Amino acid sequence: MKAKVKGNMSKSRVRVGIVGGTGYTGVELLRILSTHPFVDLCCITSRTEAGKSVVSLYPSLRGFVDLQFIEPTIDILAQCDVVFFATPNGVAMHQVPELLQKGVKVIDLAADFRLKDPQVWARWYSEPHACANLLDEAVYGLPEMNREKIKAARLIANPGCYTTAVQLALLPLLEAGVVNSEAIIADVKSGVSGAGRNPKVGSLLCEASESIRAYSVDGHRHHPELIQQLEIMAQKPVDLTFVPHLVPMIRGIHATVYVDTHDDIELKALRAYYTEKYDKEAFVDLVPEGDHPATKAVYGSNLCRLALFRPSKKKVVILSVIDNLVKGAAGQAVQNMNLMQEFPEQTGLNICPIAP
Amino acid sequence: MKAKVKGNMSKSRVRVGIVGGTGYTGVELLRILSTHPFVDLCCITSRTEAGKSVVSLYPSLRGFVDLQFIEPTIDILAQCDVVFFATPNGVAMHQVPELLQKGVKVIDLAADFRLKDPQVWARWYSEPHACANLLDEAVYGLPEMNREKIKAARLIANPGCYTTAVQLALLPLLEAGVVNSEAIIADVKSGVSGAGRNPKVGSLLCEASESIRAYSVDGHRHHPELIQQLEIMAQKPVDLTFVPHLVPMIRGIHATVYVDTHDDIELKALRAYYTEKYDKEAFVDLVPEGDHPATKAVYGSNLCRLALFRPSKKKVVILSVIDNLVKGAAGQAVQNMNLMQEFPEQTGLNICPIAP
Amino acid sequence: MKAKVKGNMSKSRVRVGIVGGTGYTGVELLRILSTHPFVDLCCITSRTEAGKSVVSLYPSLRGFVDLQFIEPTIDILAQCDVVFFATPNGVAMHQVPELLQKGVKVIDLAADFRLKDPQVWARWYSEPHACANLLDEAVYGLPEMNREKIKAARLIANPGCYTTAVQLALLPLLEAGVVNSEAIIADVKSGVSGAGRNPKVGSLLCEASESIRAYSVDGHRHHPELIQQLEIMAQKPVDLTFVPHLVPMIRGIHATVYVDTHDDIELKALRAYYTEKYDKEAFVDLVPEGDHPATKAVYGSNLCRLALFRPSKKKVVILSVIDNLVKGAAGQAVQNMNLMQEFPEQTGLNICPIAP
Amino acid sequence: MKAKVKGNMSKSRVRVGIVGGTGYTGVELLRILSTHPFVDLCCITSRTEAGKSVVSLYPSLRGFVDLQFIEPTIDILAQCDVVFFATPNGVAMHQVPELLQKGVKVIDLAADFRLKDPQVWARWYSEPHACANLLDEAVYGLPEMNREKIKAARLIANPGCYTTAVQLALLPLLEAGVVNSEAIIADVKSGVSGAGRNPKVGSLLCEASESIRAYSVDGHRHHPELIQQLEIMAQKPVDLTFVPHLVPMIRGIHATVYVDTHDDIELKALRAYYTEKYDKEAFVDLVPEGDHPATKAVYGSNLCRLALFRPSKKKVVILSVIDNLVKGAAGQAVQNMNLMQEFPEQTGLNICPIAP
Repeated sequence: MKAKVKGNMSKSRVRVGIVGGTGYTGVELLRILSTHPFVDLCCITSRTEAGKSVVSLYPSLRGFVDLQFIEPTIDILAQCDVVFFATPNGVAMHQVPELLQKGVKVIDLAADFRLKDPQVWARWYSEPHACANLLDEAVYGLPEMNREKIKAARLIANPGCYTTAVQLALLPLLEAGVVNSEAIIADVKSGVSGAGRNPKVGSLLCEASESIRAYSVDGHRHHPELIQQLEIMAQKPVDLTFVPHLVPMIRGIHATVYVDTHDDIELKALRAYYTEKYDKEAFVDLVPEGDHPATKAVYGSNLCRLALFRPSKKKVVILSVIDNLVKGAAGQAVQNMNLMQEFPEQTGLNICPIAP
Repeated sequence: MKAKVKGNMSKSRVRVGIVGGTGYTGVELLRILSTHPFVDLCCITSRTEAGKSVVSLYPSLRGFVDLQFIEPTIDILAQCDVVFFATPNGVAMHQVPELLQKGVKVIDLAADFRLKDPQVWARWYSEPHACANLLDEAVYGLPEMNREKIKAARLIANPGCYTTAVQLALLPLLEAGVVNSEAIIADVKSGVSGAGRNPKVGSLLCEASESIRAYSVDGHRHHPELIQQLEIMAQKPVDLTFVPHLVPMIRGIHATVYVDTHDDIELKALRAYYTEKYDKEAFVDLVPEGDHPATKAVYGSNLCRLALFRPSKKKVVILSVIDNLVKGAAGQAVQNMNLMQEFPEQTGLNICPIAP
Repeated sequence: MKAKVKGNMSKSRVRVGIVGGTGYTGVELLRILSTHPFVDLCCITSRTEAGKSVVSLYPSLRGFVDLQFIEPTIDILAQCDVVFFATPNGVAMHQVPELLQKGVKVIDLAADFRLKDPQVWARWYSEPHACANLLDEAVYGLPEMNREKIKAARLIANPGCYTTAVQLALLPLLEAGVVNSEAIIADVKSGVSGAGRNPKVGSLLCEASESIRAYSVDGHRHHPELIQQLEIMAQKPVDLTFVPHLVPMIRGIHATVYVDTHDDIELKALRAYYTEKYDKEAFVDLVPEGDHPATKAVYGSNLCRLALFRPSKKKVVILSVIDNLVKGAAGQAVQNMNLMQEFPEQTGLNICPIAP
Repeated sequence: MKAKVKGNMSKSRVRVGIVGGTGYTGVELLRILSTHPFVDLCCITSRTEAGKSVVSLYPSLRGFVDLQFIEPTIDILAQCDVVFFATPNGVAMHQVPELLQKGVKVIDLAADFRLKDPQVWARWYSEPHACANLLDEAVYGLPEMNREKIKAARLIANPGCYTTAVQLALLPLLEAGVVNSEAIIADVKSGVSGAGRNPKVGSLLCEASESIRAYSVDGHRHHPELIQQLEIMAQKPVDLTFVPHLVPMIRGIHATVYVDTHDDIELKALRAYYTEKYDKEAFVDLVPEGDHPATKAVYGSNLCRLALFRPSKKKVVILSVIDNLVKGAAGQAVQNMNLMQEFPEQTGLNICPIAP
């Protein structure tokens, strides 16, 4: 019964809860949802900040969000239609089963439901998965790949930020089968907000500004996620070298992807795969030939901008930029919610990038 | 006739032109106007870039603005209901008279119509004023001070960025007559976008980042503008020391204003003047007692956030933060347009600040 | 006996220890001391990092410093000629008495010995002072003011960063008695390294970059230190309004100081007080008339650059820039050590500012 | 005769001139040379700034450099022992032949003498080479590769910044012949100072900060320079994909280099090639296994820090960081001068990186 009522109502308005809203994906969800025309923001939880007003942590939201953080309890969350988990990895998996049972749809912005293989999950996240039985059901929330499944889903694994940028760069070429899937290099650069709001020495302005460095060259958690997804696209084994870098800026991811192709395939033909795939996508933009997209050209927006180059006979270089907190996190999550609620996909996401 | 038709239409939609749209106030107008629900963006002019698409200069606008820069001609501009001048100082005054005559309303974001005294203008802008006869008619576009006049105006002098921050800081106290108007100090700090998009050595990242410096301590063009406005508020002579600083960030102005008051006036009483004055203002926010507003808390938005302190018996310190490109330029200009067109004042300006 | 031997040796080399070297003043001491020609760096202590190599925390020092952090013990420290305390406030006062007794000279970069009045200390640092009897003996280590006393001292209170910038700005005018000491305003702006290496949310790149904010307007610990020092200079009561700001950069302090003077005193006369006072100072530079010094012009160096303006009849505005970690901390500490050891004052400090 | 006298004197002091000293490599030369113990800075030329003091352009140098810019004339330059050209590409080649003839040694920091093939030069620099006959004689000034030749040279082609970082990353592996020279990818990231001090929109703080972008993916002038050099190292054809990126920071280059190797070669063995090659190098540092060097760890210094990773069976990833203005330009030039003058190679370059 309840579900049915929800279904009817969902076309006009949706009751939304956020679990773990003190991090940067949390505040970004609030920024977007606070002006979403169909959203009633019902609750936001935080064990550590319960009782405090949201604006005491995020003064930028004064006048836009009038909530207090509350303790996360199933009872309150169950009154929502959709619950976003903006928690650290390994938290959502303990609460999601009960919420689903109560008819609540869940969008997890962490990694709990991204990997299909619970063994792989356990290896990268250092604990066994708490509800491996849901991994099959969870829909990987990349709308450009899984739109129809997302519409029907009750549990969404929102993709990682790096992986969104790299997947959108590679999707048309891997589906077309025109590049060597066993020799892919993704050199990715991220702003510091990707490291979260938890105070760490490495994220201090004094450490991170006026400097760039690689990290986790020997292995990053987005690597298995990417392998899984790229193999679905390619329908064959993928070998990927993935090197993330920390760049002295707040927002933005720039992926520089190197793939091998046949000598005789021209740039024009390659671009055709992208226009065909993304022509009707509201949030993916192939920039004019020769242009190099800057992360600033997507700042604060849900856009991914892409460019293609053929610097030599064998190589294709794909540039892909997103705002890691929007298309790489909160914006994509809202895009998924829009699909699940049958709202127009762009609702609340028609945000023009801010420049300069 | 035309004016009448315009009047009727203006309640639903407005035809807008922008003159000189290649600078940062120009692109910011485009960002805001491109999602304004009642605006038809008709033309944007630039002598130097005529023929080029807007997005070739501002890739961030791809998908939002589909115009080309055109040569500025009166004929085309005259087809607009409202024309924004985002030109360098001294340009608008040559074109405005003719546009007004043709029934077009004008909002000038430069300084051409801010000073009432043409002699003062000539001294600070190094040339005689081209249409001094319009200076009296021009309405100084600070809505919190001149809302009713703005509604009736056909020519708006949009305030300077520094002056907006300082005026909103002082308006309640000067009107109340509780501070010494002859000993005001405004120490103001601005992001680099205030220096414009014209390439100058001092605005290069390598010069301006990792550094702060004062400039124009001996005299800045916003000083006479401020004196004029503060004297209107105080209804008596004002002595103001005004020191601007360049801060290594893109956007934001922080004004720290020091005034003398009587020993026995308490913070609470001072705050009451602000709540009374600004309580119904959509874009002015007095932060909770003890809070210090950061410019980030208004980033990208049309807000001014204010704080008051009483560090000693005699002194009041007022902190005032705005986004120099929004409340300090393009946002305030759109706010003025909304008033002139009888749109709800917040239309198109309900932008949540972006943080982090 | 030991002291005597030390005395002889000190002219050629000095054995140096650092207590609490994990913060930014610690690493800056290491940067400077590692190339100081007369220094033998003997030990660096840290309770939390004992056993780790210095370069594991500060990779920039690889090839320059080959020490490991050790537990702080009196025995080891007593083998040094000079010990620098780069500890948090309230630590040095517990260890200094014993070290002095053993003939070790001490330079405290924290606040433990800056305030002469133990009551004031207790009020601002929230605990009673542990060795109030030493406060009189401690020499306030501003060489431009106390050079001779420093040479003879065995305990130096190294000045705070803000206070160094403001004192050097005001010293000539207060000594000359030409300004009103009861109406001083110091609007000071600091890079984020002033907040230390301890990870705090407010110091994260994502919070502190692209933003400026004031803090502690109601009272900052450098305020009583400044009052004490300025009153010594002025030889009369001082009233000071002091507002610190956090600026999005790593290093640098810019003080903008506002004082009232007589109508008839000219800029030239004011500049003369500065040239007279500072002409022979190696580290204080009065910039040419009309110039505005940027903090970048002292980046990484021990310099203070000053500018004077007379924007109106009554006002004098003094601009003062330093690198907060050098002249505002470690560099000044080494300058003090040079004086105490009878080395040429510039030894190891002949560092050209780094620009861009 | 003159040469002989010079030879004798050169062991103690060297007379130095700088041509075109207004750019960032010029100011950096001045920073380093002003504290070099054996250098007499004789003249610095600039057509556009002749007559102005150096410190009016570079206030950071006040107290360190007391020269005025002069017009570049052969007569004055001929009185120097060594002349550095810090001019735009294509300038030095017109003046160098005459200076060499007069017995002056030349170090060109631009690209005029880097490419051995004048045809390639003409293609990339859009004009014929003015003294192609000198290209063979010019020694490519990478000391780690060409030390003995540099000592004997009278004309040095100082390497480009990107190319220095990439060459030092690859030299040991290419010489050892253990990687596939026909599948090299260099993804390089540079601070904005690499774009020079010439004011361009793309180098403005408002454009370049809070953003990262690739550029010249289709072809960059450092590409042919790299091919030439890597082929000398490998003694066989090299295929290189080279993608430069602009990073929002002033200084620093981070090269991430991807090469293929045999499955069975272990990290340990690879590291051995680096320790063997660089063990005695003063300015090349292989960081401990597992560490990722940040550009901040070389900030302001002449160091190159390197790291090696083996993320998969086939791939080797090499990380290489330098300060583009020091080891990538002025510092390396001084290192070359030291070699040519038989000074100890580190003279004037024993600069500890500045951090934070």
